[in-house]
Amino acid sequence: MSLILTFLGKGGIARSKVAIAAAKLLASQGKRVLLAGLAEPVLPILLETTLSADPQEIAPNLQAVQLPASVLLERNWEELKKLEAQYLRTPIFKEVYGQELVALPGMDSALALNAIREYDASGKYDAIIYDGTGDSFTLRLLGLPESLSWYVRRFRQLFVNSDLGKTISESPLIQPLITSFFNVNWTADNFAQPTNQVNDFLDKGKAALADPKRVAAFLVTTNDPIEVAVARYLWGSAQQVSLTVGGVIQIADQTTADLTAEFAPLAVNVVPDVKQGNWQPLIDALPNFAEQTSKVPKPIEIDVHNRQVRLFLPGFDKKQVKLTQVGPEVTVEAGDQRRNIFLPPALTGRPVTGAKFQNNYLIISF
Amino acid sequence: MSLILTFLGKGGIARSKVAIAAAKLLASQGKRVLLAGLAEPVLPILLETTLSADPQEIAPNLQAVQLPASVLLERNWEELKKLEAQYLRTPIFKEVYGQELVALPGMDSALALNAIREYDASGKYDAIIYDGTGDSFTLRLLGLPESLSWYVRRFRQLFVNSDLGKTISESPLIQPLITSFFNVNWTADNFAQPTNQVNDFLDKGKAALADPKRVAAFLVTTNDPIEVAVARYLWGSAQQVSLTVGGVIQIADQTTADLTAEFAPLAVNVVPDVKQGNWQPLIDALPNFAEQTSKVPKPIEIDVHNRQVRLFLPGFDKKQVKLTQVGPEVTVEAGDQRRNIFLPPALTGRPVTGAKFQNNYLIISF
Repeated sequence: MSLILTFLGKGGIARSKVAIAAAKLLASQGKRVLLAGLAEPVLPILLETTLSADPQEIAPNLQAVQLPASVLLERNWEELKKLEAQYLRTPIFKEVYGQELVALPGMDSALALNAIREYDASGKYDAIIYDGTGDSFTLRLLGLPESLSWYVRRFRQLFVNSDLGKTISESPLIQPLITSFFNVNWTADNFAQPTNQVNDFLDKGKAALADPKRVAAFLVTTNDPIEVAVARYLWGSAQQVSLTVGGVIQIADQTTADLTAEFAPLAVNVVPDVKQGNWQPLIDALPNFAEQTSKVPKPIEIDVHNRQVRLFLPGFDKKQVKLTQVGPEVTVEAGDQRRNIFLPPALTGRPVTGAKFQNNYLIISF
Repeated sequence: MSLILTFLGKGGIARSKVAIAAAKLLASQGKRVLLAGLAEPVLPILLETTLSADPQEIAPNLQAVQLPASVLLERNWEELKKLEAQYLRTPIFKEVYGQELVALPGMDSALALNAIREYDASGKYDAIIYDGTGDSFTLRLLGLPESLSWYVRRFRQLFVNSDLGKTISESPLIQPLITSFFNVNWTADNFAQPTNQVNDFLDKGKAALADPKRVAAFLVTTNDPIEVAVARYLWGSAQQVSLTVGGVIQIADQTTADLTAEFAPLAVNVVPDVKQGNWQPLIDALPNFAEQTSKVPKPIEIDVHNRQVRLFLPGFDKKQVKLTQVGPEVTVEAGDQRRNIFLPPALTGRPVTGAKFQNNYLIISF
């Protein structure tokens, strides 16, 4: 199990420099580090080396890899074919080749997350530094286990309870037909079988994301007011996918404003803006990521005894946070991120009796 | 029908400034302009106004809108429910509410593209300026009609030819069963019915994208070598989704290098880096977008007579371009974008007899 660390903020190249310096810092401490980046040429230029979709050693303890969707899609296609052959008696995918597959929106994120998951599970790395887009697309990527598991729990139950689901599970005519197409006995109960595999995968992802020792982000900003505003926006938005933000990396400018108030209670670490290749001053100024991350508020705390849920939502004011309860779960909307709160059995299905927003916390009572 | 204009490049805030100035320029020429941006707070700060998911007038002839996925998802959900009710006899979606839906990776792009399509079709705007992520995610978004239509044509035929497809279309037992679940007569022929609607939508999207008078992008860069490299990378990548890049906007720096050679045959337009609010010097330095776009090479030219396809692929060298023919179509891979070339009947299914890469062109002979 690795520490997965990423950086959020508006300034693209500065953010990649911080990611490289962070990777070098952890490697110098004896950790086995993987630096994983996008397909665009930023990392290769900054590192002065060509990179590919296979990790390569660029320094002692330090490997680097790019995550191009087209290559990852090709590699994952064979796995998907095996899954299809397992569940479907007459597979269709076998006649389509990985080399002709085109990436659709969202695939980049799903494939990159899957690659990170596999590198994490390989046991080869103590830390994975992900140099992604650093914006809300990175949050969608890391939030995928959280958001997808909502779709699974919501639509599976609806399907099982629907006329369609009932007809399939009860009809003596349809069962043998389904068996002739699928390799599974698809009753409502056994409908759980394929989804359980998915659920296990999603639960592991959610557990990792909720654990600041496993996954954390740091904000990167200069004192440009727009960059600061975007960093604050991403800080709040990150909480909505249960991503812990451990601190702020402030790139020094001609004038370096004090940003402590904007990001309290996070530590603001001022670092120099270094030229490519001259990494040491930046490395020396970086904080202890794990230590700072351990001190910040958790995105969500559920207090069953007092029937309260406390959500840490910094960077937003009261008007920007919306609470609804239209479906079976409580929905919180902030920063273009919607979150359905999966409650423990003691609180499930209870109506919300009160809610207040104060000191960056949304406190919901049941 | 509007001109849809977007900007690609690494420098986030500078790119948004150019988008704003472009919108103001076109509005000052009497065009009805919509400026559409991301949910993050960059545009509201630069424009010194709050924005929402509904267009609002911010100057004469100029409206601005944000495209937050959560709001767009909610609005589109009702449409999806209607579609489901049309094709499925026992709808499941009706019990799920738009307000609880969570955005998954890719939805942001699909929803933003759909919103742009609707604003375009509304007839209310002569130009739509899309201030998106400006990176490969924007290319996936604009390339969606191209990439999705490949999936439709590839998998539809495989399904129709498969045992599963044949059993469904030929079995006297399964037809009535399907009719009891679906409102369509799902034979192999009629399988075309729902996909034809999709195809029509995709064909219109592809036609718009392939027409530089309808959709165009401009590159935005400083003379920072990494920004230049990323701009060149995006220039080549854009061709792979048939997006015409009309020219370069170079933000002046302390030293302004001559980038003409890097981007030939595009025009390089040097503009000043303006402070927020002081838009006029930037507006005055912007080019005539439509005129410059009309002069650049087309992403693809198909010469049936000489059995040749010419792809304009600038920004890549020979080693970065890959040509394969594993499936029924010819696949070209460059810049993490894969493109399957949909050929006219005279060339369909022919084997590639030769290929060469020279002067930024990949020339394929059949």
